[in-house]
Amino acid sequence: MTNEIEIGRGKRATQAYSLDDVAIVPNRRTRDPKDVSVSWQIDAFQLETPILGAPMDSVMSPATAIQLGRLGGLGVLNLEGLWTRYENPQAILDEIAGLRSESERRSDPKITAKLQKLYGAPIQPELITSRISEIREAGVVVAGSLTPQRTQEHYQTVIDAGVDIFVIRGTTVSAEHVSKTTEPLNLKQFIYELDVPVIVGGAAGYTPAMHLMRTGAAGVLVGFGGGATSTTRRTFGIHSPMASAISDVAAARRDYLEESGGRYVHVIADGGVGSSGDIVKSLAMGADAVMLGAALARAEEAPGQGWHWGIEAAHETSPRGDRVPVGTVAPLEELLFGPSHETTGSSNLVGALRRAMATTGYSTLKEFQRVDVVVSPYEADRF
Amino acid sequence: MTNEIEIGRGKRATQAYSLDDVAIVPNRRTRDPKDVSVSWQIDAFQLETPILGAPMDSVMSPATAIQLGRLGGLGVLNLEGLWTRYENPQAILDEIAGLRSESERRSDPKITAKLQKLYGAPIQPELITSRISEIREAGVVVAGSLTPQRTQEHYQTVIDAGVDIFVIRGTTVSAEHVSKTTEPLNLKQFIYELDVPVIVGGAAGYTPAMHLMRTGAAGVLVGFGGGATSTTRRTFGIHSPMASAISDVAAARRDYLEESGGRYVHVIADGGVGSSGDIVKSLAMGADAVMLGAALARAEEAPGQGWHWGIEAAHETSPRGDRVPVGTVAPLEELLFGPSHETTGSSNLVGALRRAMATTGYSTLKEFQRVDVVVSPYEADRF
Amino acid sequence: MTNEIEIGRGKRATQAYSLDDVAIVPNRRTRDPKDVSVSWQIDAFQLETPILGAPMDSVMSPATAIQLGRLGGLGVLNLEGLWTRYENPQAILDEIAGLRSESERRSDPKITAKLQKLYGAPIQPELITSRISEIREAGVVVAGSLTPQRTQEHYQTVIDAGVDIFVIRGTTVSAEHVSKTTEPLNLKQFIYELDVPVIVGGAAGYTPAMHLMRTGAAGVLVGFGGGATSTTRRTFGIHSPMASAISDVAAARRDYLEESGGRYVHVIADGGVGSSGDIVKSLAMGADAVMLGAALARAEEAPGQGWHWGIEAAHETSPRGDRVPVGTVAPLEELLFGPSHETTGSSNLVGALRRAMATTGYSTLKEFQRVDVVVSPYEADRF
Amino acid sequence: MTNEIEIGRGKRATQAYSLDDVAIVPNRRTRDPKDVSVSWQIDAFQLETPILGAPMDSVMSPATAIQLGRLGGLGVLNLEGLWTRYENPQAILDEIAGLRSESERRSDPKITAKLQKLYGAPIQPELITSRISEIREAGVVVAGSLTPQRTQEHYQTVIDAGVDIFVIRGTTVSAEHVSKTTEPLNLKQFIYELDVPVIVGGAAGYTPAMHLMRTGAAGVLVGFGGGATSTTRRTFGIHSPMASAISDVAAARRDYLEESGGRYVHVIADGGVGSSGDIVKSLAMGADAVMLGAALARAEEAPGQGWHWGIEAAHETSPRGDRVPVGTVAPLEELLFGPSHETTGSSNLVGALRRAMATTGYSTLKEFQRVDVVVSPYEADRF
Repeated sequence: MTNEIEIGRGKRATQAYSLDDVAIVPNRRTRDPKDVSVSWQIDAFQLETPILGAPMDSVMSPATAIQLGRLGGLGVLNLEGLWTRYENPQAILDEIAGLRSESERRSDPKITAKLQKLYGAPIQPELITSRISEIREAGVVVAGSLTPQRTQEHYQTVIDAGVDIFVIRGTTVSAEHVSKTTEPLNLKQFIYELDVPVIVGGAAGYTPAMHLMRTGAAGVLVGFGGGATSTTRRTFGIHSPMASAISDVAAARRDYLEESGGRYVHVIADGGVGSSGDIVKSLAMGADAVMLGAALARAEEAPGQGWHWGIEAAHETSPRGDRVPVGTVAPLEELLFGPSHETTGSSNLVGALRRAMATTGYSTLKEFQRVDVVVSPYEADRF
Repeated sequence: MTNEIEIGRGKRATQAYSLDDVAIVPNRRTRDPKDVSVSWQIDAFQLETPILGAPMDSVMSPATAIQLGRLGGLGVLNLEGLWTRYENPQAILDEIAGLRSESERRSDPKITAKLQKLYGAPIQPELITSRISEIREAGVVVAGSLTPQRTQEHYQTVIDAGVDIFVIRGTTVSAEHVSKTTEPLNLKQFIYELDVPVIVGGAAGYTPAMHLMRTGAAGVLVGFGGGATSTTRRTFGIHSPMASAISDVAAARRDYLEESGGRYVHVIADGGVGSSGDIVKSLAMGADAVMLGAALARAEEAPGQGWHWGIEAAHETSPRGDRVPVGTVAPLEELLFGPSHETTGSSNLVGALRRAMATTGYSTLKEFQRVDVVVSPYEADRF
Repeated sequence: MTNEIEIGRGKRATQAYSLDDVAIVPNRRTRDPKDVSVSWQIDAFQLETPILGAPMDSVMSPATAIQLGRLGGLGVLNLEGLWTRYENPQAILDEIAGLRSESERRSDPKITAKLQKLYGAPIQPELITSRISEIREAGVVVAGSLTPQRTQEHYQTVIDAGVDIFVIRGTTVSAEHVSKTTEPLNLKQFIYELDVPVIVGGAAGYTPAMHLMRTGAAGVLVGFGGGATSTTRRTFGIHSPMASAISDVAAARRDYLEESGGRYVHVIADGGVGSSGDIVKSLAMGADAVMLGAALARAEEAPGQGWHWGIEAAHETSPRGDRVPVGTVAPLEELLFGPSHETTGSSNLVGALRRAMATTGYSTLKEFQRVDVVVSPYEADRF
Repeated sequence: MTNEIEIGRGKRATQAYSLDDVAIVPNRRTRDPKDVSVSWQIDAFQLETPILGAPMDSVMSPATAIQLGRLGGLGVLNLEGLWTRYENPQAILDEIAGLRSESERRSDPKITAKLQKLYGAPIQPELITSRISEIREAGVVVAGSLTPQRTQEHYQTVIDAGVDIFVIRGTTVSAEHVSKTTEPLNLKQFIYELDVPVIVGGAAGYTPAMHLMRTGAAGVLVGFGGGATSTTRRTFGIHSPMASAISDVAAARRDYLEESGGRYVHVIADGGVGSSGDIVKSLAMGADAVMLGAALARAEEAPGQGWHWGIEAAHETSPRGDRVPVGTVAPLEELLFGPSHETTGSSNLVGALRRAMATTGYSTLKEFQRVDVVVSPYEADRF
């Protein structure tokens, strides 16, 4: 069945599905969870888990990036966030965690205005250098992110400080940014000249992802990030349900592999992957790895202290995200590997992935992308 | 895929989509928001934004119509509302804003009865003249609205007072109104004889819109107005989801352009366009402009003082709308152009439109009507 | 598009639509509400409105049946309810209205047990006679209902007392009831021998309705009654969404008209028609008339005193309905003809129907069955 | 219409339906409930009702298994639960019933941790023997369950103690469990060598069920159990809507009947069958019998004392279920056979099934599997 829909006589659209719309189903074989491998390799880097920490100040600090790296994941530090704007960001993080809302509404103009003010402080290049050094000295894989808008200005600092993986991450990043007034980043040339692998996104959809793959990126971020915190649909009307987005980008990966004669670009789900079930389903849709925000913001060590927000919540003229409560569940290690005392999919994320793969009979992530899937709207009160 | 559905063996229907059902998606190109034009021209009038103020007493007064005009939009004054029934409508507006409901229900018979009484005062033609003059003297484009039922009686007063654009607006307006007892308005003849351009509606659907276009109208209002306040579906069973309605009328515009040998009739979404995301999606569905009610009723200067209602809420025998709370967000200028401290799409409406167009790679409103769209039901708790 | 669905490899099903799923849409023509006729004729009886009062004790007493008849509708008295079990049912009605629930739940076992006890009193044939006489003496069309189970036992009493229209109404009534232990009612023979027209139901679906039409019935009740009070779906798994049910039965009417060489059997929507919008949509789906429960239970004169229940709520072993609050809105006359001060579709039911027909350009109920319809799930918070 | 869906360019899925999505509809014939048979035979055992008690500690104790057997059903005792871990499980059951949650959330880590601790006690083989003996001495059919993981270790004890029906039940059980470290249970050989009939599951889907049927099982459990308590979808992303799952497995039964030259494997719905309506719909989808958890946990005699949980809620590292409140409704006999004073489908389960079958014209369970079905999403507030 094609998924094209006629909205009216003048417009066609594509039916799209969210992760909540889908579920995986077992088939004829089951497997011992101990025999399942969840390892993942991107470029020269072999990781024990397919989990990236999202470059959001509520999730990744130098310390949590190091810790995640030691636990087998890849922490990505936001190089335009509080850690590169403030010598002592802890005070700012404490202040944000302490903000109390007077209204019942999730969206509170006073908190938004406060975030806008705090993120108005200038980025200090020397802090970029020192934050990266701190991670590097810990001996884990080093990854930091810039937005496309600021990549020109700061990338040399980032490279000189010594990142292993360079992440260019914006709400929407295209391979062809057009501007009459500024010289936009030429992604293809930039990536070609860079010595380190680049992960770039967000993108959603076959065509935009295919164009990003052609820039030479090692990985593409699927989705627009910050699923739990974002209000992009309400403010901009932009939304790309993740199950369909991942599946479309995975198809681009397959076709680009053919087109390029063998270059495998990694597909990383980024946005709205909030529980172990979401991780499972993202990989089932074809992702190679997942970038986690809210799911890691629930760690005891998370800088957000039970709160979670993205940098788009602090945009100076068009804020489109909120500081949302996610709570604190367990230390990061327990969050990833259990044992869990939570039944909501917020703990033992990797154990749950192993068991989901075992229950459906798969032993590697690549094979698991073929798992059977059903569409069935999520019925909240049945859980 | 066709959108025809079999309800049962004896009835077929069309699947229709609301603005909440759809979202736009980026593609291969992004653009600098500064390079985006949101200007709009109807007849001889060049407007900086594609925004009309709905002729509702909670939204448009002579003062806010003037202010909206100065900010690049087009304010439309309801010439059958409080401003032409009362010498001093401010007292009435204060009274309506002060009505307190005893029940938890949104629909309160006492408030309805009060509105019915207040709107029972007779229309005073000299007030039509003076209200229009007030706007005219401010030097902005002047637009006023009558219902089809009262157009015969008052249009000469309106024309003599000097409107630039004449709006005929009812819940449903057809090109062929049939009556055995009264001589209905012959829209085609009326528009032909009038010297000023006419915007007429609401209409929804290809055929009724096509017939309205053939009357010579400069623009057609799509939808039945007052989305936030209307109870037409519950009371009359009538509903026309906006995404499909706009798309159908946009198709009529295209076909009429061909049929008429080049007359471009503007499609204006009117009803249920309550946030910046809704504006974006209305234009993406094919609208040339949007008529805003609730979205502008949230301005500090709005006559409704945080409340919003349409004239159908005061219908003497069949009221079908409520006075609803919309709150007060910011001064009108900030509501339109930011900077915003709101993350719900209620502020920086024009800025959000610019960014949505830039993110999806378009630089003019006309091109933006081709943007890619997905169908994906709105998941409230994901925002 | 066909509406057949594959549930799984072993089962097919039909997609069915509720009244909430659909809405009517205007087309190219509008009409003056004053030119609209809502009159309806069944057998020799010409009625000014297509409204029947449901034989439920919360809705129809002899007094309200008379009043409805005088207002142009057709009241149907339940001849197995409180009025034929008690000399003075008012005391019982007061008792039911006074029952207070200790739980928050709509379903309260204590109230159910009480209803079971109150309805356990025996039917007194002489009360059947006196109640019918009371209505007859008022000079309105007289209609009374029995269940199929008790028709054999009481019909002679009913006929002798002088009903104009005989209603056989059960949750589900088929033309072919099979029993090994009792001799079931032979509907075809029964109707053939009776001198008065018979309305029979509930039925839903083309085939069961077609078989009921072949029994010689003058009208078929579509649906299983008591939409607002029934829990048949939860208890028995039985449910037949009304939009599809009416449309299917309307198709049976059309085909039976052909098969019978011209016998027009009336299709009467019975169940879940709770607002003026629901009335409009039922007729749009092909119904000739509607049988109202909750919608009339909101009258000041209603015996239920703001509460509403069906006899299935008192079934001795398998109760499947609740006493539900519906509130009191206005006197019956105002409920039917306005003027209304309600915006929820609970008042001026006939006025709303007239306006819906006028807005969509129709002047008779029969033509209105052809009105255009869209499928669009009801979005509660948009109203 | 095929039920294949394109999620995106890289993934296809099957549309699946839950029991809430479907309803049964009457057809041309109705029947006397007294003429309906709900008896069911599996292997040599003739049961008066098609109801199995789920092997969950909140539902089945030796006492309630005996009672259910005497009432015509089949109680299955969990042989890895509290009754085989504790000499006196009543104290533990009281402790679990007495746990109070401090949070509003259904998922409470403290309660989960407590369950994990309580279920950490070792299984005592002599208790397996004594519990089975207790049931056997009562003279009812004896059934006990083990998980596949522990079947090897304990089955001989179970057989020696004398079960009539052996149940192998896990969240997901496949005919082909693969492990590199342990020798998995060879189901086919195990069942072949066993003298008693085996019921095995859960499984969902045509292929996995077909493979289970080929092992020689007498019955297959459809679903993953514990619908009311499970959080498998959120934690593992695994979900298999029951209407589709049952229908798929019923198709496997049909095809296996052909393939095997006449072996009829029973299909038993297990999971999310919580009301009489759900029982009706499960059988309508093709099930031969239902295994009830929450529905029987509401009995006054139920060990859970108004609470309900599955053993997966106590998994030591990946708990994926909650202790949920289900309340206490009536004694078990009344729960099964009425008379009911409940209108929610929680009482007179067998009476409701009889009436549903009678209303749709069927006299045996096997015929009833052919009943007409509609798809119509459950509208909570209409009930």
